[in-house]
Amino acid sequence: MNRRMIAYVLGILLLCEAGLLLFPTAVALIFSENVVTSFLFSIAILVICGFILVKCKPKDTTIYARDGLIIVSLGWIVLSLFGALPFFLSGEIPHYIDAVFETVSGFTTTGSSILSNVEALSKSMLFWRSFTHWIGGMGVLVFVMAVLPLSGGGGDIHLMRAESPGPTVEKLVPRSSKSARILYGIYLGLTALEFILLVIGRMPVFDAITTTFGTAGTGGFGVLNSSIADYNVFCQGVITVFMALFGINFNFYFLLLLKRFKDAFKSSEIKAYLGIMAGTIIIITVNISNYYTSIFEAFRHAAFQVSSVMTTTGFSTADFDKWPELSRILLLAVMCIGACAGSTGGGFKVSRMMIIIKNAAKEVRSISHPRTIKVLTFDGKKVSNETVRSASAYLVIYVLIFAVSLIIISFDKMDTVSNVTGVIATLNNIGPGLGAVGPTGNFGDYNTLSKLVFIANMLLGRLEIFPIICLLTPSRQTINFFKSLSRKRGKM
Amino acid sequence: MNRRMIAYVLGILLLCEAGLLLFPTAVALIFSENVVTSFLFSIAILVICGFILVKCKPKDTTIYARDGLIIVSLGWIVLSLFGALPFFLSGEIPHYIDAVFETVSGFTTTGSSILSNVEALSKSMLFWRSFTHWIGGMGVLVFVMAVLPLSGGGGDIHLMRAESPGPTVEKLVPRSSKSARILYGIYLGLTALEFILLVIGRMPVFDAITTTFGTAGTGGFGVLNSSIADYNVFCQGVITVFMALFGINFNFYFLLLLKRFKDAFKSSEIKAYLGIMAGTIIIITVNISNYYTSIFEAFRHAAFQVSSVMTTTGFSTADFDKWPELSRILLLAVMCIGACAGSTGGGFKVSRMMIIIKNAAKEVRSISHPRTIKVLTFDGKKVSNETVRSASAYLVIYVLIFAVSLIIISFDKMDTVSNVTGVIATLNNIGPGLGAVGPTGNFGDYNTLSKLVFIANMLLGRLEIFPIICLLTPSRQTINFFKSLSRKRGKM
Repeated sequence: MNRRMIAYVLGILLLCEAGLLLFPTAVALIFSENVVTSFLFSIAILVICGFILVKCKPKDTTIYARDGLIIVSLGWIVLSLFGALPFFLSGEIPHYIDAVFETVSGFTTTGSSILSNVEALSKSMLFWRSFTHWIGGMGVLVFVMAVLPLSGGGGDIHLMRAESPGPTVEKLVPRSSKSARILYGIYLGLTALEFILLVIGRMPVFDAITTTFGTAGTGGFGVLNSSIADYNVFCQGVITVFMALFGINFNFYFLLLLKRFKDAFKSSEIKAYLGIMAGTIIIITVNISNYYTSIFEAFRHAAFQVSSVMTTTGFSTADFDKWPELSRILLLAVMCIGACAGSTGGGFKVSRMMIIIKNAAKEVRSISHPRTIKVLTFDGKKVSNETVRSASAYLVIYVLIFAVSLIIISFDKMDTVSNVTGVIATLNNIGPGLGAVGPTGNFGDYNTLSKLVFIANMLLGRLEIFPIICLLTPSRQTINFFKSLSRKRGKM
Repeated sequence: MNRRMIAYVLGILLLCEAGLLLFPTAVALIFSENVVTSFLFSIAILVICGFILVKCKPKDTTIYARDGLIIVSLGWIVLSLFGALPFFLSGEIPHYIDAVFETVSGFTTTGSSILSNVEALSKSMLFWRSFTHWIGGMGVLVFVMAVLPLSGGGGDIHLMRAESPGPTVEKLVPRSSKSARILYGIYLGLTALEFILLVIGRMPVFDAITTTFGTAGTGGFGVLNSSIADYNVFCQGVITVFMALFGINFNFYFLLLLKRFKDAFKSSEIKAYLGIMAGTIIIITVNISNYYTSIFEAFRHAAFQVSSVMTTTGFSTADFDKWPELSRILLLAVMCIGACAGSTGGGFKVSRMMIIIKNAAKEVRSISHPRTIKVLTFDGKKVSNETVRSASAYLVIYVLIFAVSLIIISFDKMDTVSNVTGVIATLNNIGPGLGAVGPTGNFGDYNTLSKLVFIANMLLGRLEIFPIICLLTPSRQTINFFKSLSRKRGKM
């Protein structure tokens, strides 16, 4: 383990966060809001701490697999703790735990909130809140790598793997810092496109920026209490499409850029993702058609909500908690499935689900034909046993975390539906659940212990559990375990 | 496949059911109830159909593995369809589907009911209703084998394996018909003991018989609308202890009979079962202590309810739907875990849960020490890979059935908590859930489609999914699959 290198990278992260805070500071200056001092004070703290850590720079700049996992988990925690400072120092979110909740929810692109009245926040705070989604969507470390090439030695791929959602990370190009830059390029391009379309749709520029941040990171923080419901139909349509686009594996866009259209459309994960999405939209449209004046309106709301929930964005145009039971259950189901691996979306991931089901089918076949060689393939490539094991282990640990969280939260005085969907919504980085934490509710009524559990769930969900476990159990065995895991995750 | 043999065994089953119906007929005569004609008419139908099928008796009386699975699934379905006749013919349950629901719930020892007023039924119908629990508890086929030795050739063990709950079936003695007789002997002994204790506790004899049937089968049908709440504290205590006892693997009692105490108490499943039960009782006692006048009363209700829910009996002394959230969630958790394999209880089974968790832990270890030989042991015996695969496959199929059932039922106009807990309660053969199907509610308000789904769930839960799948997909591949499965299930 290279402790000095870990400290050094964390220092760089803090300096980057200081840099990123200049944007909301600028917004505060533009709207001449007096919270500008809170931002400046936060930046000062970040710069001081950052410089102290950067002084640690070691001679040996190798990042081992385990170091990567630790940097990622510590990095996300530290960024959230410091990122909460502006909210807290300005007094706009009076309790520090609440501020941390909001920041973690932002960076992890969950979009759950403890605020009952979003519109009470100043513009610059709203900007920072939505900006965290955009930063967190592609990954904080990936951002750092895109800006400054960290080191040679190939250690940086460990950072990317630990931070990227889903069971697969392929290097798009041999150098991972270049991969990171390509990914951020695609991300920036799509973001710019959505922003332009929203402005064309006559959304106010400030709202267009923040909403685009929320869509791109599949986060879901809005700047209005009504989320997206008060914008016009065109803008809602644009957001619907872009939420779905940001839920697609970014390799797809990379292949499109290379004009390898055949390869791009071959992906069975994307087919399954779009198929499930379309099917669910159709069923819900029929199911809620009585609730709206026309079938088109029902379709519009159904498409928006399915796109929002399946990509784990969490925007809403309607209070789906009031929809009929079938629609509510279907939304819960696509919530659990989630988006594609390698996208900004959360959840269990379509490909991971497909691997588990394919493996179950393979088991049945292989037992009846014991002498045939059993190879599990996905998109024509062999899936290693380790990938399958990793996916299965993920399912078991996922269920255990769900159960333990639910039991701790049930100490609080809230109802079953809110508790269950609250845990699902945070662990899958969705945002709203049903009941008290539904699209018109928030997490503010929970006590501090429950909020800490939700914070942990959001981080576990975003980092896909393993890096956090690695941070908590630093034994030699786990090191080897995660080393081999991350080695094999990449192979698929 | 030996079709004639399947028909023959089904014929014997129908004749046995006709014989069993003589008991409620006698009750009807004792209380001079006019429903006696409904019973006689049902018996007549059973005898006619039974004799037609028995005429099929083939020369080759071999029962293959697949035949065993088909006999068990068809047998349970046929018995339920005919067993519903008395309820339907007497008009005490006017709709045939409702009558089938009640009978399936009885035979599968679920204890869910569509009746809002149990006390409106005649005594003989109540007797038959509770008697189905007792018959179904140990297994209908096991009963047949205990009474008349079916055949040589060892084929009968396939029947026992297909019908017995949990991942393990060991022959207690070399001949399985003798094993069946020993099991029924233990079952009868415990039943008689509970009945005597309840009568000593001054419970009316009729109530003592039916309540004992409900406890022994871990079913949960009562004869009073208040379930067990109106009986005295001593009787409630006796029922609490006996519910827990009927949730223990019957091999335990067999070993006690052989005076092999050391072997009996070595079982890690029983230790885990009692440990989880005790822990849950303590937490719930503390959690509900404010709801009752003394800590003893809280303990009494907690112990009763945990014992009832974990063994999937479903009796109640209190409306636990009104208990605080923590207690409700903990009850749901032990509901899902269930009782020991090889008991009359349902659920996922403690040993299956232990195998899955042990396997996950093994995976972690084996990845860090790739060169050590990995052997999963349980109670000192090696667990074959096939047993682990079978348990994992069970989990995946279980989750899929849960999701599909929930989606179909959400077409109905009931609420989320009732739907979710209703599916859990039927699939795990528990009985009551929360909300509308809570301890004071019933399943009567669901529509026919939902009731059919619940009926399917109860059968799938009781027969542990595989035999039913085998009945539905009669391909060569599944034959081999289940052949190897049942072969390996026995090995553990």
